[in-house]
Amino acid sequence: MNAYEQMTKAEREAELKKVRAEFDALCAKKLSLNMARGKPGAHQLDLSTDMLTIVNDPAQCKIDGIDARNYGELAGLPSAKKLFAEILGVTPEQCFIGGSASLQLMYDAIAKAYSNGMLHSEKPWSKLDTVKWLCPAPGYDRHFKVSQNFGMELITVPMTAEGPDMDLVEELIKDPAVKGMWNVPKYSNPDGIVYSDETIRRLASMKPAAPDFMLMWDNAYCVHEFGCEFKPFADILSLCEQYGNADMVFEFASTSKITFPGAGISVMATSVANQKYLQPLINVQIISYDKVNQLRHVRFLQDKEHTLALMKKHAAILGPKFKTVLDALDAEIAPLDIAQYNRPVGGYFVSLNAMHGTAKRTLQLCKEAGVTMTGAGATFPYGKDPNDSNIRIAPSLPPVEELEQAIAIFCNCLKLSALEKLGL
Amino acid sequence: MNAYEQMTKAEREAELKKVRAEFDALCAKKLSLNMARGKPGAHQLDLSTDMLTIVNDPAQCKIDGIDARNYGELAGLPSAKKLFAEILGVTPEQCFIGGSASLQLMYDAIAKAYSNGMLHSEKPWSKLDTVKWLCPAPGYDRHFKVSQNFGMELITVPMTAEGPDMDLVEELIKDPAVKGMWNVPKYSNPDGIVYSDETIRRLASMKPAAPDFMLMWDNAYCVHEFGCEFKPFADILSLCEQYGNADMVFEFASTSKITFPGAGISVMATSVANQKYLQPLINVQIISYDKVNQLRHVRFLQDKEHTLALMKKHAAILGPKFKTVLDALDAEIAPLDIAQYNRPVGGYFVSLNAMHGTAKRTLQLCKEAGVTMTGAGATFPYGKDPNDSNIRIAPSLPPVEELEQAIAIFCNCLKLSALEKLGL
Repeated sequence: MNAYEQMTKAEREAELKKVRAEFDALCAKKLSLNMARGKPGAHQLDLSTDMLTIVNDPAQCKIDGIDARNYGELAGLPSAKKLFAEILGVTPEQCFIGGSASLQLMYDAIAKAYSNGMLHSEKPWSKLDTVKWLCPAPGYDRHFKVSQNFGMELITVPMTAEGPDMDLVEELIKDPAVKGMWNVPKYSNPDGIVYSDETIRRLASMKPAAPDFMLMWDNAYCVHEFGCEFKPFADILSLCEQYGNADMVFEFASTSKITFPGAGISVMATSVANQKYLQPLINVQIISYDKVNQLRHVRFLQDKEHTLALMKKHAAILGPKFKTVLDALDAEIAPLDIAQYNRPVGGYFVSLNAMHGTAKRTLQLCKEAGVTMTGAGATFPYGKDPNDSNIRIAPSLPPVEELEQAIAIFCNCLKLSALEKLGL
Repeated sequence: MNAYEQMTKAEREAELKKVRAEFDALCAKKLSLNMARGKPGAHQLDLSTDMLTIVNDPAQCKIDGIDARNYGELAGLPSAKKLFAEILGVTPEQCFIGGSASLQLMYDAIAKAYSNGMLHSEKPWSKLDTVKWLCPAPGYDRHFKVSQNFGMELITVPMTAEGPDMDLVEELIKDPAVKGMWNVPKYSNPDGIVYSDETIRRLASMKPAAPDFMLMWDNAYCVHEFGCEFKPFADILSLCEQYGNADMVFEFASTSKITFPGAGISVMATSVANQKYLQPLINVQIISYDKVNQLRHVRFLQDKEHTLALMKKHAAILGPKFKTVLDALDAEIAPLDIAQYNRPVGGYFVSLNAMHGTAKRTLQLCKEAGVTMTGAGATFPYGKDPNDSNIRIAPSLPPVEELEQAIAIFCNCLKLSALEKLGL
């Protein structure tokens, strides 16, 4: 029983009155604050200002014998492949460099499965009656929407502290209609969970019934520590290969939260056999991605060591923001025990589970008080949280002083919705 | 009868001996020249050097109240929409700004028809047995490959001096399985033909049986004159709307041949109703395209007037290259009458029709002599030219001195293949 449940009716009535008065006072401030999406703040963007002018004349535009300004090099500049290969621990030949969005590369990989079939597919998936997809949840709403766009049946797999529930996964993949699975293996969105070595081993060694199963490995936060030193991570491509699953895995990363979210570069790392199969299909839609921007990134980030040094500067900005959120939750919410939340050391989110049946109402109250949050349910397939409980908090965008106001409002709304739910 | 056909056996034997000796001498030079693709040359790329540094600090990254570095603005910066809207004669609301490739936007539009259906579709096209597509030919190989990728049945429509054969088009669209048509209305690839006003009017006023017919309007060379003043063109969106076909047309353009081919920006212009329908579907695959690069283009190109001034500088480089090609053909080929060719005043290609049955052989000989050309047949659906005749010459990439060598080799190979074909 949480603190509110333990109260007498009179105590709860008094508390509700107090909390509602606070809420009204907050609304009267007519604030406009945003903790909705994992958007870096302006100070983080300023860390990459030098990138704007690092490629500044025609001579600078040539690298690896290639003029980055002209057409060509579908799979990207060799030097850009080398940069991502070092960061991910894969080989340059396994890398395909894309534009500003790794989401586009994920979408495209699945879109090819639909229109053309993958390397080991019997036929294009558009010709199948049913395609099912495993969705560890809470998870990333945009992943789920890609699967939904193609009419897949989304299957929720609960997250544990070690990653997705592997007993369940191993059972579900016996169904040949189950064609793939989303994963954010490091600092999962939104839980901030790092998959354990054992979870990763079990995933790499799976034997799905579908020969063209796609293990989607969105390593969005691979170098994104803010609360600890850089944690090395396993090369999932090698691991899958060891277990005879070389063509099963598709790993993605981007510089969206390293340099500029709106003007970064992205990578899809997969087996050379998959690259050979997919690149001619991708060439139907594009001659080459923006190589001048690839070159800016190569010159600015240089290598893994310099990239990690830049990430320390991001951490110095992000760390205090996460502390602001957690300090407020620790002070206002933990003593009441009306919600549980994670304490991530990397990634972009704090995941909070409110009293069942209060997430939607909490976010509605936040909106009324001028704080925009990710919609309730967004972290579950079809946008439906069965418990109406999970809330994703994104502390990165607002400056600390605004964040303090926003999280204070959020704590008030959490309390108010819990009291409303319990009734009098 | 051409000059070779009119020769006696002995004359032809002597000519063959002479032409083959020239060919052998050319091969001995071991050259490596390229007239394969419509790639701008280095001097053209240098015209946009200022764009590399035009957005050079954080304050410069803000426009229209938007920080171009961060996520957001799926349809592009308002100022980028305004720029393309002025050039195309459409409204900003009708514009969606994409990444470095307009081909990607064309592919995506058709891919959405497949996976989701278009605004007026009964169901996704992947659920239909047959989809047919009209392909004016000679045409652009990459267009045809997009259609082929989705398993469409490609129907060849002959090109006339006025554009596609409209009598045939008006007949073919009575079939509800005919879902769309490729067009390059200005300086068509490869013929360099500008559609006549009457052709454009007939296209805009078509009444296809398919309610979701897509008139694909690739205005790739809309401001790309090199041999005359800028020719204004009709706004196809307004024209279609006048005839009750507002949602039928999708117009595309890019800066690939204005600024940098490998680092430009692109646009899809279509009705506001289509934009409202398509943008949420596009949002499933991408949060936003590279807005910093959009901003570079806005600041560098400024408006239509400045863009046209830049195109004059391109013309000053391209004009002499096309003259080199045409002068050589006029001197070497025209007197023999063994091939016919167009005299374009814009675009990127010279289209040549060789003696039937000699295009493949000509290009094979070119290859042996060190000149890379677009593959024979590439300008026809399925890569099959029924007459083995059409050859696309792309003079833009090599410097004039290399181009002189390349076109001399090409003329020699044309003669040799004609003589071989006629036999002794």
